[in-house]
Amino acid sequence: MNASTNRKWMLTRRPVGLPKRSDFSFETAPVPEPADGQILVRTHYISLDPAMRGWMNDARSYVPPIPLGDVMRAGAVGEVVASRHPGWKAGDHAVGMFGVQDYAAADPAGVQRADPSLAPLPLFLSVLGMPGMTAYFGLLDIGNPQPGQTVVVSAASGAVGALVGQIARIKGARAVGLAGGPDKCAYVTGELGFDACIDYKNDDVGRGLTKNCPNGIDVYFDNVGGDILDLCLARLARRARVIICGAISQYNNTGPVKGPANYLSLLVNNARMEGFVVFNYAARYGEGARDMATWLGEGRLKSREDIVDGIETFPETLLKLFSGENFGKLMIKAV
Amino acid sequence: MNASTNRKWMLTRRPVGLPKRSDFSFETAPVPEPADGQILVRTHYISLDPAMRGWMNDARSYVPPIPLGDVMRAGAVGEVVASRHPGWKAGDHAVGMFGVQDYAAADPAGVQRADPSLAPLPLFLSVLGMPGMTAYFGLLDIGNPQPGQTVVVSAASGAVGALVGQIARIKGARAVGLAGGPDKCAYVTGELGFDACIDYKNDDVGRGLTKNCPNGIDVYFDNVGGDILDLCLARLARRARVIICGAISQYNNTGPVKGPANYLSLLVNNARMEGFVVFNYAARYGEGARDMATWLGEGRLKSREDIVDGIETFPETLLKLFSGENFGKLMIKAV
Repeated sequence: MNASTNRKWMLTRRPVGLPKRSDFSFETAPVPEPADGQILVRTHYISLDPAMRGWMNDARSYVPPIPLGDVMRAGAVGEVVASRHPGWKAGDHAVGMFGVQDYAAADPAGVQRADPSLAPLPLFLSVLGMPGMTAYFGLLDIGNPQPGQTVVVSAASGAVGALVGQIARIKGARAVGLAGGPDKCAYVTGELGFDACIDYKNDDVGRGLTKNCPNGIDVYFDNVGGDILDLCLARLARRARVIICGAISQYNNTGPVKGPANYLSLLVNNARMEGFVVFNYAARYGEGARDMATWLGEGRLKSREDIVDGIETFPETLLKLFSGENFGKLMIKAV
Repeated sequence: MNASTNRKWMLTRRPVGLPKRSDFSFETAPVPEPADGQILVRTHYISLDPAMRGWMNDARSYVPPIPLGDVMRAGAVGEVVASRHPGWKAGDHAVGMFGVQDYAAADPAGVQRADPSLAPLPLFLSVLGMPGMTAYFGLLDIGNPQPGQTVVVSAASGAVGALVGQIARIKGARAVGLAGGPDKCAYVTGELGFDACIDYKNDDVGRGLTKNCPNGIDVYFDNVGGDILDLCLARLARRARVIICGAISQYNNTGPVKGPANYLSLLVNNARMEGFVVFNYAARYGEGARDMATWLGEGRLKSREDIVDGIETFPETLLKLFSGENFGKLMIKAV
């Protein structure tokens, strides 16, 4: 790599099941020229998120599919190296959907500023970025946990789940996590301060939920779908709220999605299941970021990043999300 | 039968799949004596509802299971023939959970008055009774349809569904029904005034929904579950509300319930699925009954009762609900 070339990962095939190296091509091109009104960003950290799997499918969703032959869509944080927009200058830092590439020429609409004096750059892809806003608005706006209520969250050591449980506790609720393996569970209770964590790889999840949620589950923040969603549905408290944030257990299915067989628990408990896409809260990101930055500054929110070196590792690094191998917010350090 | 005996249907076995005659016993006993504070009611009409199937199971739910050996639980309307309660006198009419029997000695708590000058008695088991309150609060409180929005309801010629569509239209929304067979569909559009009705027994339901809901489904009031729920989920508009009122397609399953495989449509559409039990609105029945009675008086609500003669027919008559053979609110005329 040198300063005049742009390495980029293109989506060239729609994956069937788990994405494979051969679904992408790694190309080198000249660094793009920003058009009038655009900025040129050198990406420093590229965010890897479960939602990327959905964007690869040719299906109606909240955003259009990534066209075949286009750069793989991804959030990233980087430095402005050239600007043809009056609001931005070289040296500014920016967060946006810059893609899995070294350089992006971008329209500043939809790009946020990142202030490196406020927090290290990777945090603009975690606590102060999309996972942070996802946890904040999903839990508070839809889940609305009350003091003393029990909040359960799956993928509790992951980028979103870790924040959900910590915010729940800041609001006076009990937080019960689900994570894979003793190390992650120890982190969730020890470092993050959850009240309990159930090891879904080694424990009996149903029994763990029953034991740790003696009055039922008031809020379940679901990142995984599948059997865990069903086990939680079977244990809802009256007027419970189930937040459908993701379903990572189902994203690489080649057969049909497993629907929640226990959904009639919603009926008998007057409960609600609600989905959301964080982009719909864009107008309120300021509010979320302000609270999250305050809690971060007060030491009440901890975050852990799992940073892998080198944009060339993209396809293999992405798979860590689906195997549960990552520990903390997964991202690639581009430079 | 004579005036000194009480015929009653007892639940003697927990049904597996469809209830059978042999799950019940038909017994004759002396007419009960009301205890101090109780009333003695002669039942005139007994309500048969899909929810009865759930009450027969030994499962945690919103009401305890019917104990084996007890009278089969059912709503009914009848006449007070003796009273040991100062608030009631012989000749009053009452609606309550009097069971599948000729006479019930009942505590008046939870018993409502029925005024036969306001409407014929059967209507206190339909428009002005539990199905009416179910349609009213489920649609308006959870569904909250706005003028011009599209409301879809399954079992549209049934006791609840027929009212849901008519209330939707009163509120300025479009009503699209699903019903089984051309006669029921003709009734739903012709008599009840729905904008469209899809014959789920003969039409391609998915295509019918797509055609009749060009802007997606804003409110889906689900009485059936199963494949129809999935077809509706796949066609939700943004911020849609799915009301889980029942799942008659699943009640007699001997295998697991079919969960809605398309539930991730809630996520991409920021939509909500919410269950409810009408009993939780008991404190607001007055409000619902007042509106329903007004609309009934203005001719804006039509209702159809399917009345079968004779309490002795109970097990066979109940099955009409699950085969879809009933046409309108199913009830038994006891005397």
